[in-house]
Amino acid sequence: MFTYTTTLRMHDTDAAGVLYFVNQLRIAHEAFEAFMATTGLSLHQIIQNADFQIVIIHAEADYTAPLFLGDRIKVEVLADHIGETSFAILYRFLKDDDHAVGIAKTVHVAIDRKTRKKRHLPVDVRATIEKLNQ
Amino acid sequence: MFTYTTTLRMHDTDAAGVLYFVNQLRIAHEAFEAFMATTGLSLHQIIQNADFQIVIIHAEADYTAPLFLGDRIKVEVLADHIGETSFAILYRFLKDDDHAVGIAKTVHVAIDRKTRKKRHLPVDVRATIEKLNQ
Amino acid sequence: MFTYTTTLRMHDTDAAGVLYFVNQLRIAHEAFEAFMATTGLSLHQIIQNADFQIVIIHAEADYTAPLFLGDRIKVEVLADHIGETSFAILYRFLKDDDHAVGIAKTVHVAIDRKTRKKRHLPVDVRATIEKLNQ
Amino acid sequence: MFTYTTTLRMHDTDAAGVLYFVNQLRIAHEAFEAFMATTGLSLHQIIQNADFQIVIIHAEADYTAPLFLGDRIKVEVLADHIGETSFAILYRFLKDDDHAVGIAKTVHVAIDRKTRKKRHLPVDVRATIEKLNQ
Repeated sequence: MFTYTTTLRMHDTDAAGVLYFVNQLRIAHEAFEAFMATTGLSLHQIIQNADFQIVIIHAEADYTAPLFLGDRIKVEVLADHIGETSFAILYRFLKDDDHAVGIAKTVHVAIDRKTRKKRHLPVDVRATIEKLNQ
Repeated sequence: MFTYTTTLRMHDTDAAGVLYFVNQLRIAHEAFEAFMATTGLSLHQIIQNADFQIVIIHAEADYTAPLFLGDRIKVEVLADHIGETSFAILYRFLKDDDHAVGIAKTVHVAIDRKTRKKRHLPVDVRATIEKLNQ
Repeated sequence: MFTYTTTLRMHDTDAAGVLYFVNQLRIAHEAFEAFMATTGLSLHQIIQNADFQIVIIHAEADYTAPLFLGDRIKVEVLADHIGETSFAILYRFLKDDDHAVGIAKTVHVAIDRKTRKKRHLPVDVRATIEKLNQ
Repeated sequence: MFTYTTTLRMHDTDAAGVLYFVNQLRIAHEAFEAFMATTGLSLHQIIQNADFQIVIIHAEADYTAPLFLGDRIKVEVLADHIGETSFAILYRFLKDDDHAVGIAKTVHVAIDRKTRKKRHLPVDVRATIEKLNQ
């Protein structure tokens, strides 16, 4: 499991005075990117040069408590599923370290850069995601 | 059913050259707000003055084809479910009017403004959402 | 002059109940992209294939009245300056068609795709921007 | 002077493969909010309860080098000007701690919550901003 922390800023909120709902998924992806940055894999390199791409085919989020400007958020990042061509990441959102406020999930699939068809997860991508469960 | 159209702009995309995934849900909500604006209900008035609030408790999206800068998107907005305290909206994304590229769903619940506890859907909110199925 | 209209949505606002300031510049760029789309030039094609790129080197905005959720905005787009290697676009924001609420300006420069050094504005880019003053 | 660090994530970038320009101003404001959070002043409390509001009347940014996905950014926050009713904040952006990549500036004015007319900077707001120059 990887843990990411952030603080809700003005741009995360909306006129209803709480987190604008899609930003929970954006913060989830920030957490995923922060995890990736701790391993040897560079998203920047993959996007620019790799013969594969990793794309999101599904995303979802549940919201169980309102989040306000200035709230400190902890995101726990776990691998929910690792398949032959895809993997799913689960995110648990906590406020003040222990108060559960929501979850999110993203499903990622490996595709060939040119054909955009599904392909096996590259070995190093699989190894990286597996680190989330160790 | 209500139909909303938009065009993918730079801020919708990311370094992978396609729609940044959370923006599909943002565009879904734009479509929902555009529908609301065609009825007598004002989100601005509700947020400022109503004794209730409508909050999102779940959101999800599926992505079935990549969307690029400049792509013209049509969003079909439908009521998926209308319950006592909540309703679900379904969004179908089409590119070039007929090529399905994804779906999204948002689940909204009515809460009391002060207690933030669930309450019955206000009559006018229910009537507005029911228009989506007529 | 080109005119673009849009409506302020939840994601444009923040917890202070008004337009989040950077979104005025985002809407300005949306207006610029909408103008470009009316001409023969495709930003998508330029980004993917051209031997030049157009990058922003300066942006600014003034805010003279608050903008709220649901406000209808008109953006007037003008060419402020067209030089050898760069051009500046001016945006005037109106609410309800006639109430000035702010301005924005973006300065764009042509660079070589590989070296990222300044170069002359491509002829078709110059011709496109000049249309704003006709 | 206050220093804020962040890393460019997917949502900060666009299809051109670099930082989407308005996000430099968003990151500037994040840095300002992070500074405010280190003092006794709570933006959340001000927005909800204070008889004044602090609003942005001008923003600008210069971009001197491209920023890519994964780039580590340092933002130096300074008070550029402190007047009777307003103050200006200057932001210097550095990549890899020492390579200047841009600047930003925001001008903030104190207004009465109800009338939205200019008023003197509250004493504690002035004292907080003055800390940036100590």
